[in-house]
Amino acid sequence: MTHLIGFICVRLIGGCSKSSEGENEEYTKQDGDSITESRMQMDTHDLTRKLHTKNDSKIVMLVADGLGGLPNEVGGKTELEAANTPNLDALAQRGVQGLSIPVLPGIAPGSGPGHLGLFGYDPLKYEIGRGALEATGIGFELQDGDVAIRCNFCTLDENGNIADRRAGRIASELSAPIAESLRQIQVDGIEIFVEPVKEHRFVVVLRGAGLGGNVLDTDPQATGVPPLDPVATDAESEKTAEVAKEFLRQASEILKDQPQANFHTMRGFAAKPNLPTYEEVYGLRAAAVAVYPMYKGLARLVGMDVVGNASNLDEQAAVVKENWDDYDFFFVHFKYTDSTGEDGNFDEKKARTEDFDAFIPKILELDPTVVIVTGDHSTPSFLANHSWHPVPTLLSSDCCRYDNQTEFNESSARVGGLGQFEAKHLMTLALANAGRLGKYGA
Amino acid sequence: MTHLIGFICVRLIGGCSKSSEGENEEYTKQDGDSITESRMQMDTHDLTRKLHTKNDSKIVMLVADGLGGLPNEVGGKTELEAANTPNLDALAQRGVQGLSIPVLPGIAPGSGPGHLGLFGYDPLKYEIGRGALEATGIGFELQDGDVAIRCNFCTLDENGNIADRRAGRIASELSAPIAESLRQIQVDGIEIFVEPVKEHRFVVVLRGAGLGGNVLDTDPQATGVPPLDPVATDAESEKTAEVAKEFLRQASEILKDQPQANFHTMRGFAAKPNLPTYEEVYGLRAAAVAVYPMYKGLARLVGMDVVGNASNLDEQAAVVKENWDDYDFFFVHFKYTDSTGEDGNFDEKKARTEDFDAFIPKILELDPTVVIVTGDHSTPSFLANHSWHPVPTLLSSDCCRYDNQTEFNESSARVGGLGQFEAKHLMTLALANAGRLGKYGA
Repeated sequence: MTHLIGFICVRLIGGCSKSSEGENEEYTKQDGDSITESRMQMDTHDLTRKLHTKNDSKIVMLVADGLGGLPNEVGGKTELEAANTPNLDALAQRGVQGLSIPVLPGIAPGSGPGHLGLFGYDPLKYEIGRGALEATGIGFELQDGDVAIRCNFCTLDENGNIADRRAGRIASELSAPIAESLRQIQVDGIEIFVEPVKEHRFVVVLRGAGLGGNVLDTDPQATGVPPLDPVATDAESEKTAEVAKEFLRQASEILKDQPQANFHTMRGFAAKPNLPTYEEVYGLRAAAVAVYPMYKGLARLVGMDVVGNASNLDEQAAVVKENWDDYDFFFVHFKYTDSTGEDGNFDEKKARTEDFDAFIPKILELDPTVVIVTGDHSTPSFLANHSWHPVPTLLSSDCCRYDNQTEFNESSARVGGLGQFEAKHLMTLALANAGRLGKYGA
Repeated sequence: MTHLIGFICVRLIGGCSKSSEGENEEYTKQDGDSITESRMQMDTHDLTRKLHTKNDSKIVMLVADGLGGLPNEVGGKTELEAANTPNLDALAQRGVQGLSIPVLPGIAPGSGPGHLGLFGYDPLKYEIGRGALEATGIGFELQDGDVAIRCNFCTLDENGNIADRRAGRIASELSAPIAESLRQIQVDGIEIFVEPVKEHRFVVVLRGAGLGGNVLDTDPQATGVPPLDPVATDAESEKTAEVAKEFLRQASEILKDQPQANFHTMRGFAAKPNLPTYEEVYGLRAAAVAVYPMYKGLARLVGMDVVGNASNLDEQAAVVKENWDDYDFFFVHFKYTDSTGEDGNFDEKKARTEDFDAFIPKILELDPTVVIVTGDHSTPSFLANHSWHPVPTLLSSDCCRYDNQTEFNESSARVGGLGQFEAKHLMTLALANAGRLGKYGA
């Protein structure tokens, strides 16, 4: 062990001293912006973009979705505290922990902003529109310039007014072929994709030149009134609104004899978000090892490669191992701490937390330079929902400042060395601990 | 107790799950602002405005003015630590505490910014001009468009130069009738109010169309020189400067035979600040239960109703109870932890803290969903002044993450689950704990 630490130290110091000597890589502001202006526009990527250096370190970020929890009663334990997690506790002794605030105090995020924060993208600056997230969530690979639209089948009465905004929540078996029947719709110069989602939901993606994403919903949010026409809110989206209108015209013909789903609304028009990549902002070749399409999609949006086709933690560990030499950064996503929390099932969340703990050694045996364990938000089974509570987060490396905690959970994280911090700062800490960040200023 | 938690759980889960199902209430950005622009302008209200939902929860914010303190010597106790506060300590066991930073580290605020922060209004973004605060402090109800001016009687010598900038700190009994004599001043098209304050101070409020608040002080901050003319610093305030000049001309006639107060200066010209209301940014019907005019006035500026006419804590508790069904949010203000601190009287501050503690059960018996105990700043008797030290702050609800503290004071708050946070985030936490905030993003 001494020998191992010695070896890693040398490697780290190599990375660090390179950056401290590399004057060219120091961040120097060349433009003439006023301080206020630059401060207002500054985000962490403006630093990492200029300060990052390369070395042979490996960073692994293990995301247990919805990790944070609550006790069921005063004086009780959270799911993570109740779980038997010997591996996480051992890692805590070689790491530093704290509480990460996904967005801002009191704000419960969805999966999109929750992961953007962990990836180091300010979730208040970067927004993934509803349509783009929905397309991402079903594994559709958006391309630059695509506009994704979330659609709901609805039922119109004989006067053309909406009688049911969700077509009676029509069963997926019925709605999928109906959605697929809309694939016959053709609009000049536009490639159109129609993908069924669940029940009354489907996604339409428009691909073609000159399509903006700023078009208002056609769902009037009420029954007894007709659907609205799509209306662009900027000049760049006029063409999108025209295409959508033509799509709706043809859809109304195709659907008119359906008993329930005789029309549809369009919501959450969204261009593919234009996020800088991990390679650009961190200099990292990044791989995502996830089971669910949503998380693969989110990782793809920041330029990660989605590797392997794992369907459980064992397979995910194997995929990380197989790809170890080809990437600098691995994002590994575990879903079931969130889904069991959302089910309000304390015992199941605790059990899935233990599954996650058992997986930790398989990553550690690869000898990563930096390991991070965190969640994109809390999902206390007590609330059966995403919540705003800050998330226990653990970072282990040979140059972290150990904080003398012997367990990893909400109570330890509360008094841990990372304090409370906005999640968007986590990637900077990861890079620093990997010896991949130069000095700011001379 | 189990039953109670069960009941409240259902209520909260109702509030929280509503947001996850309430698709309409998800935050969707409709405008076409560039991302950078939206981040620069983003404040917490941009989130709460779009994410807030309604339910039947009740939030009570108990503000012990100047609550935070200091020990008199190394190793000693603060006023709050020395006080016997069984009710606050019991509440700490069912809550989560932390230290709220009123503005920024090291910044000691006045009452205005201190309360704006607690109310969730960024005190660096929103400023209440000195004149407006002074008018508010004496209970004058400013209307939109009003311009308030803080005036000081002064003594001019035979050459028209200022001999005493405060007219010898003339006694209030003498100065009040002199101020009232200025009510005879008339300016075409302008309604003018003159209100005595204390000693050499009085307030003038101008009401009429087209009055801007940006006029420079006429006080030259020196003796042996004449007072300055009022000068507008923008076009919108030219008329204000003209009116002020005419007021001064007439005042000089009226006052010319006074032995001490033979003229006056004008300072801190300020339009009524244009603050968004609690109803708009939080969806809360808010009531203020305060004894002193300043705090009633501050609450009014953010759209709270000032209810009751209480003159002590017992009466304040009764007023809260009487109005319980009509409001979602109650701000209760207690002055004497500040005034005793400003007097430098440790024992008195400790005793008033105990009075405040004794009042807590009267609020708890109303069964609020969320109770917050905090202060607008620290007023250590050791300094006999407002200070920058962060303020012990306690939040209790059935879905807070309890932090195992058994007391409420500076030392407990330092290791509490809320960590250290800017006061402006407190209202977001209150809303979240009340189940009144939807999820940010999908």
